[in-house]
This record gives sequence, structure tokens and C-alpha cells, in this order.
Amino acid sequence: MNKQEIISQINAKKSYLCTGLDTQIEKLPVSLSRDGKGLLNFNKEIIQATSAYSVAYKVNTAFYEQYGREGWEWMEETLSYLPDNTLKIADAKRGDIGNTSSMYAKAFFETLPFDAITVSPYMGEDSIRPFLEFENKWVICLALTSNAGHADFQISEYEGKKLYEKVIETVCKWGTEEQLMFVVGATRAEKVKEIRELIPNHFLLVPGVGAQGGSLEDITNAAANKDIGLLINASRSILYASSEEDFAEAAAAEAKKMAIEMATFIK
Amino acid sequence: MNKQEIISQINAKKSYLCTGLDTQIEKLPVSLSRDGKGLLNFNKEIIQATSAYSVAYKVNTAFYEQYGREGWEWMEETLSYLPDNTLKIADAKRGDIGNTSSMYAKAFFETLPFDAITVSPYMGEDSIRPFLEFENKWVICLALTSNAGHADFQISEYEGKKLYEKVIETVCKWGTEEQLMFVVGATRAEKVKEIRELIPNHFLLVPGVGAQGGSLEDITNAAANKDIGLLINASRSILYASSEEDFAEAAAAEAKKMAIEMATFIK
Repeated sequence: MNKQEIISQINAKKSYLCTGLDTQIEKLPVSLSRDGKGLLNFNKEIIQATSAYSVAYKVNTAFYEQYGREGWEWMEETLSYLPDNTLKIADAKRGDIGNTSSMYAKAFFETLPFDAITVSPYMGEDSIRPFLEFENKWVICLALTSNAGHADFQISEYEGKKLYEKVIETVCKWGTEEQLMFVVGATRAEKVKEIRELIPNHFLLVPGVGAQGGSLEDITNAAANKDIGLLINASRSILYASSEEDFAEAAAAEAKKMAIEMATFIK
Repeated sequence: MNKQEIISQINAKKSYLCTGLDTQIEKLPVSLSRDGKGLLNFNKEIIQATSAYSVAYKVNTAFYEQYGREGWEWMEETLSYLPDNTLKIADAKRGDIGNTSSMYAKAFFETLPFDAITVSPYMGEDSIRPFLEFENKWVICLALTSNAGHADFQISEYEGKKLYEKVIETVCKWGTEEQLMFVVGATRAEKVKEIRELIPNHFLLVPGVGAQGGSLEDITNAAANKDIGLLINASRSILYASSEEDFAEAAAAEAKKMAIEMATFIK
């Protein structure tokens, strides 16, 4: 899915919502079985209920890996439920020496049919470049994250810049805005304006709206560009909008509510 | 496996070798089938051949994930071949917001019976702390890596220090030397002496000897402490010592050669 196709989807759906499929068996509605079958039924219904409002889906690999090889099976099955016109993001935060990153790229871009993967920049160029070698795939690099721990390393001074600014500037040299996005937490709206000045055209993947406390309005005002240029993720607030039998309707309502707010920002 | 048990194994085997199980189907000896069965037979024979010389085994998750859910099955099966008296390291380089890192910890410490996991520090404290909450498990944090990309972010000035020094100092505050190790590449021997001064007692996991060009002697001279305090990893040089039917004997010979050199440094 190339950049123009993402922009077309945003304009067609009047939404830049990414729904995060952070599914946990323990949190499934009581109407579903607490096992893989229940998890898959849940994901299928959530996807059907939200696909009119979601231009992207983000599968957080940790939630599936906690169940081991079965979890990987469920991740694969879940991917098959996703509509073709949505961007399929593996939120995997991988990164290793070059020959190893090549295998992660193969895992998520070939063995599993993801369109995009999140990567961690700590190991530098050869840890990220193998992902960039895949045509029509996206690499989404961690920059300024939504969690408290962002303050430990990302925002301190590094060669006269903040580390996350240095990461953005450096990683931008390795790929184009047609293949690179950055993760910027919605809880950092005050910094996002500056990031947008650094990279006016790149898409940003923005977690942290909803359960983590970030504001959709603040982040959009700070960082929307002419194409919107944002994929705002919500996971828990949509998935667990209701713990009853009406979970899918409740998820649809929550996604719709966000899309309606988003539509006000789309020209 | 606690620190004293690792030290006891080093003294018993007169070796601080970690064998990396970076197995690829394409590289299997011609005598084995090029499928999961062949891969598992290979791993089993390699483990049997090297266990007299290896105090630890490192499973690089990328090599298994490239095969999807089957790869996870093979990783699980491979773990069952590892002797109880060896440290089982998941070289996974994970790290995410707190609730997500908890699930990675569950994946590798509960669902799979690893003793240790490598983590990336970029997302800070809450991305690492969940792994530290497991008793008798090890967190091995990336510090100064063996690849060319280490130069992009790790060694530049950060608050008057190198970023990797800042990472070591900061992460050390979150756990004890009984539960924390650091990854330091064997290709960085000139820096390792300073790292050892920063953390005199921590174990270091050292990749990069062999195929990547690091020297066992240099790294040992630079960084061995009273307990040795090193786990030196070799993967390709052992696994693919021969591509013929004698691969296991060749792997044993290569591991033995390293162990004999290591024994000269063990008091």
C-alpha cells in the first residue's frame, strides 16, 4: 500500500484511525470462549465492526507471542480477516544486525503479509536498512514514544539535539517518505509540532490516544499536514468499549466517534 | 540460573562460550532434509556436540520467526534439547511500553522456558522493568553492539557521555548484577575496558567473535573480571564449521578450540 493509496483511504473513509488489535484472552467478553477460538472470533468481529472507520490495523506482536506458537498462528489468521484496503502494521519494534534484520523483514513482509513494521533505531543503519529493501512496504521507526520511559534516553541532549530529533534526521537519510514513518506518542503533543517542522511530509504513527491519555484534537492540531499525515492508533478504548455481548457494536460506536471527530479535520 | 550457578558452570567446563543457534534451513548440511525436521535434527546434534564446551546457548528469534508459526514451534522444540545446566538466552531485542513488555516477558520466561532475554533500551525504564520482575531470570540490555550501525547513535556524545555509557549507568539503577547483563560487541575491544571499569561485576554478553571479526583474546584481556564475567557468543563459525555429514564433529571441534583458548584465561 503506497502513500497515495493511504491518503486516498483517509479521504474515502474520512478517518485516519488505526485500530490496534491488542487482544488478550483474559479480557474477552463473557459471551466468547476464553481460548484461541474466542480470540479469533473477537478479532473478526472487531475488524468487521471497525473497518468502515479504520484505514489501518496495528497488530502488537507481544500480545500474540505471549501465547507462543499458537499466538503466531492466531496472528496469521487475524491478518487474513483484514480488508485489502487497510494498512497492516506489525507493531514489533524489531532491530538487529543486518543479516538478522533481514530475517525479521522476511518474517513480517513475506511469511506474514504485513505492509509495515515498527523498528527500534538503537542499532543504527544496518539494523533498519534490510526492511527498507522491500518494495511497497513501510518501516515505522520509534522516535518519541508515548510511555513514561521516553524521558530516560529520547529527550536528553545529544550532539546539541534531542536524541529523538537526531534519530529522525538520521533515519530520514536512509529511506524516502514513501517508505518511512515515525512513531510519535500522542502524549507528547507539545513536541509534535517541532517534529512536523523537521519532517513536513512523512506520515506519523501516533499511539497513546485513549487509555494512555493523549488527545486526538491536540495531536491533530499540532501535526496534521496537507495530507493529514497521521495514523492515530486506539487499541484498548475500542477493543474493550464493552465487555458484554454488544462488544462489536460498542467498538464500532467508539471507532465511529473518533472518525467523526477526525472528519472535522479532513478538508 | 543464578549468577553463582553460571560462574560454577564456567569453572566446571573451563569455558565461557555461548553457542548461538542461528540456524537457517538453506545452510543445513546436504545430509539433512531442508525442512523443519532437518533443522531440528541439526540443532539437536549441534547441541549434543557442543554442550561440553558451552555454558550458554543463544537462540536468535529472527532466525525462527522468518518461518512464521512453524518457526516458533521449532524454537520451542529446540529449547527442549538444551541441557539444564546451560543458560538459555532468547536473543530477541524486545522492548515496548510497560504493559506490552510484560507480555514479551511472559512469552519468553513463561510460555517458553528461557532464562534470559536481550532487550533494547530506547523506550526506557518501563520498557525494561517488566522483564526484571521475574525471579531468577536475566535481562541483557543492548549497550555497545558489534555491527557497523553502532556508530549511528550509540557512540555520540550524550549529556557529556557516550550514549552507550549513559544507557549502562541508567539501566544499572533498575536492577542488580544478579539479573542484568549488557551486550557489548567483541568488535569493540578498545571500548570494553572502559565499560568494565563502569560495571566491574556485571556479566557481559559478547557477540561478534568469529564471522564478525572480533578476537576472543582481545576481548578477554580487555574485559575479564575475577569471575570471568563474560559470555562470548559464536554462531556461524560453530554451526557451519562443515557443510558435510561431519557437521557435528566439526562444530564440536570448533567449540572445543574456543574452550581450550578460554581455559587459559580461567584461574
